[in-house]
Amino acid sequence: MTDDRRSGGRRGKAARTGTGLSQLPWRNVENPNAPLAMADPEAMDRLHETSIRILSELGIRVVGDKVIALFEQAGALVDRDTGMVRIDESIVAAALATVPRAFTLTPRNPARRLTFGGRALNFGLVAGPPNVHDALRGRRPGNMADYKDFIRLAQHFNAIHMIGNQVAAPQELPANTRHLDCYMANLMLSDLAYHCTAIGRGRAMDGIRMMAISRGITLDQIASDPGVITIISVNSPRLFDQEMGEGLIAMAAHGQPVTITPFTLMGAMTPVTLAAALAQQNAEALFGITLTQLVRPGAPVMYGAFTSNVDMRSGAPAFGTPENTRANIIAGQLARRYGLPYRSSNSNASNACDLQAAYETSMATWGAVMGGANLIYHAAGWLEGGLTASFEKLVLDVEILQNMMEILRPFDASDAELGFDAIAEVPTGGHFFGSPHTMERYETAFYRPLLSDWTNHGAWEAAGSHDALYRATGIWQQALKDYEEPAIDPAIREELEAYVANRKQDIGQDEP
Amino acid sequence: MTDDRRSGGRRGKAARTGTGLSQLPWRNVENPNAPLAMADPEAMDRLHETSIRILSELGIRVVGDKVIALFEQAGALVDRDTGMVRIDESIVAAALATVPRAFTLTPRNPARRLTFGGRALNFGLVAGPPNVHDALRGRRPGNMADYKDFIRLAQHFNAIHMIGNQVAAPQELPANTRHLDCYMANLMLSDLAYHCTAIGRGRAMDGIRMMAISRGITLDQIASDPGVITIISVNSPRLFDQEMGEGLIAMAAHGQPVTITPFTLMGAMTPVTLAAALAQQNAEALFGITLTQLVRPGAPVMYGAFTSNVDMRSGAPAFGTPENTRANIIAGQLARRYGLPYRSSNSNASNACDLQAAYETSMATWGAVMGGANLIYHAAGWLEGGLTASFEKLVLDVEILQNMMEILRPFDASDAELGFDAIAEVPTGGHFFGSPHTMERYETAFYRPLLSDWTNHGAWEAAGSHDALYRATGIWQQALKDYEEPAIDPAIREELEAYVANRKQDIGQDEP
Repeated sequence: MTDDRRSGGRRGKAARTGTGLSQLPWRNVENPNAPLAMADPEAMDRLHETSIRILSELGIRVVGDKVIALFEQAGALVDRDTGMVRIDESIVAAALATVPRAFTLTPRNPARRLTFGGRALNFGLVAGPPNVHDALRGRRPGNMADYKDFIRLAQHFNAIHMIGNQVAAPQELPANTRHLDCYMANLMLSDLAYHCTAIGRGRAMDGIRMMAISRGITLDQIASDPGVITIISVNSPRLFDQEMGEGLIAMAAHGQPVTITPFTLMGAMTPVTLAAALAQQNAEALFGITLTQLVRPGAPVMYGAFTSNVDMRSGAPAFGTPENTRANIIAGQLARRYGLPYRSSNSNASNACDLQAAYETSMATWGAVMGGANLIYHAAGWLEGGLTASFEKLVLDVEILQNMMEILRPFDASDAELGFDAIAEVPTGGHFFGSPHTMERYETAFYRPLLSDWTNHGAWEAAGSHDALYRATGIWQQALKDYEEPAIDPAIREELEAYVANRKQDIGQDEP
Repeated sequence: MTDDRRSGGRRGKAARTGTGLSQLPWRNVENPNAPLAMADPEAMDRLHETSIRILSELGIRVVGDKVIALFEQAGALVDRDTGMVRIDESIVAAALATVPRAFTLTPRNPARRLTFGGRALNFGLVAGPPNVHDALRGRRPGNMADYKDFIRLAQHFNAIHMIGNQVAAPQELPANTRHLDCYMANLMLSDLAYHCTAIGRGRAMDGIRMMAISRGITLDQIASDPGVITIISVNSPRLFDQEMGEGLIAMAAHGQPVTITPFTLMGAMTPVTLAAALAQQNAEALFGITLTQLVRPGAPVMYGAFTSNVDMRSGAPAFGTPENTRANIIAGQLARRYGLPYRSSNSNASNACDLQAAYETSMATWGAVMGGANLIYHAAGWLEGGLTASFEKLVLDVEILQNMMEILRPFDASDAELGFDAIAEVPTGGHFFGSPHTMERYETAFYRPLLSDWTNHGAWEAAGSHDALYRATGIWQQALKDYEEPAIDPAIREELEAYVANRKQDIGQDEP
């Protein structure tokens, strides 16, 4: 094996065109492969049965009269003093009977419509970090300027299908109205579907109304053709709080999809064992899923999983661990058992955009895809256990996602692809560079990377020995230059601006 | 989400013990999951049929009378002028009928015995690079001092199951005898099975004899209980050269396993299309596999795949691409179709141990494991498209392999693991840190990483903000300090030394 192998001497003509970044076109990704089954049928039954025991024997404690009333009407055993709600399997089964097996999200650009369920696979922008980082400016608190740049990058990179909850909280803005500024940025700088904050009813309704305005439709119309989604967490173990309950009710009542995602760190919010964590997560998820159907039978809902573990050396949460990957795969089996769309995540615990970030993220992404996820939340930009949204990490993740999109292309064994005649034409020990079969296909035959550099060592050194992290910094800067703001009808823009102004006035110092 | 989430405040007691590196114990890894099927049954039939057409209509050109004679005896159509050998499906089928479905490799330490076939999964040290790199000393030509350090690391890290062909060629030693020095280092510094060079008969026989001496057994005995393995490449497209043929015959005749691995870069040695590359690779592999059975029916043999693509922008080979991953997965389906153990690889094309190296390697590893590989060759240390063996990359890879070993643990849904009583005991909204169920298990409940750092951002900064690459440098240095040379009977050592001395004298300037 010598350097000649990488010199490209046999084919000098470079196929590089232009100076722009290379990326895949927008596409609705499908996973054509059977998902991985890590738990056998008996283990699946045992997980389900334990979850039902948790729901019927132990119960979930609910804070909030509306939620308690809905369960009471459905036949739950309710202890009004403690708020403990116990439901048996028949209540869960009745709810599962009305859940749609798939749903869609339609943003203001109908070409960016997404499906959740079946083979569909969607990638979401990182959501929730308090901090932002890039290699040029270092780590800083979330702010609106960076928020906007992340939305621009999500719009620019076709591998990102939707915007998650606040990519980084704009901390300089008032906490009670910043969701309005975020929705506005989402709608002006992108034409993607977005996640709306559902801590309480107000923020959820603002997200729904603003998406409806952007599409020029009414609340009634958006109820049958949803455009926003949210995540309802559970305060594990087994506590369902008031703000979450009201957010869920607002969303489900208006036909917008909800993802029920218990946040379950093994060793902290659940026992240390994977089976226990999954049984508890499953019980909590089924509880929230049941609630959506009590609010509005047929309301779209997704099964969410976020089971990872604490670092037993420090007690700190760890993400992107092998336990997290196993949990994500088996959670997918549970979601499919109930006929539900499935949300997983792409997480890692690294403090820097480094080797650890790359291999933990790769592990999480592969686990989510092999586990049959319909949505990988936090798919691009998550760093530091979710405490930082990173510009370089976003570029790294887009490359990982694009590689995955290519891997998931269905295998084509047609005569043209099998190329027997092409094989017959090239002499033994020869090469296929100039073959007509090659010439017809070479420009599009292979994935063209965004971040990977495949030049030989000499050329790489001559160009400055830039590693992938250095290149990632150049790529997000170039992407922001290349970014094009999607057009919007000025009348709709005005209507949205007026909505935000009015709501800010109404809210005043309220709705903390 | 605030910094509190990562502070570990709820459980201050750190479980860290000692200052040594944390690693998993030696184990024979099994993959309990069904392999991924990316090609449907019809596509599999079409691949097989095209391969048979390549073998029967086009043929493989053979250089070397012994190989031609073996095929002629078996009923092949041979053109003695061109060396073209055509075989029909019945000849292939007869060979496949005598191939064992699994085989073992027994090194001098029988506790390090490996199985290839079924669910077994083995990880091999990188093999073949002309260069070596680490972050302290930079890039340099392969040499015996570095060779020895790599063998020490392979011995130290339990995730590395076997030694591949020369981890980095010791270029200061004479090319015609350096294989003897390498075998000697393998046998003195490790007790693992190793790959022997089979370019010609001499190097293969030296590898076999030295392994037999180290185990105190004869050539006859090792023939029924093999201890070394080799790779036979094909000079794709469709050329089988003399040195490879003689190496294969020596190995098979002495009952040592051979991996037939065509080196097929799409766009160069095969057409650009994946189906064509796989059909051609499969034809070439079946040809070599058939030959092993003509030499010695029942000889152990493994199906090898190394299909990747060239970078169509430069003509340079690219490894760790999505096309490579797809090829590895479908090649596994082909190997299983024929009932053969399967060898895949862990490759990447990065010029540095950086993000690209990490995500390309992760992709290759996941593809190989999901594809049902029994051996991942080059699993630890490969960098720069195989032109450099990297110390930091070896540490990175051991972490990736250990994560995979944990992911592949069978899922346990026993009552103890389901922990219903533990869930019942913790109040809603409480935590499980002090629960008896946790306390009984917390020390071994989760994977403890080698390279990942899960401390919170503040602690990480206070400790110097060291990224994973920096930590990897510290880890291989520490591993070399911790390394213990495995004991060997002094009489056996003397016998091996005498063997090497005699062979060097015999070879003189011969056997280039």
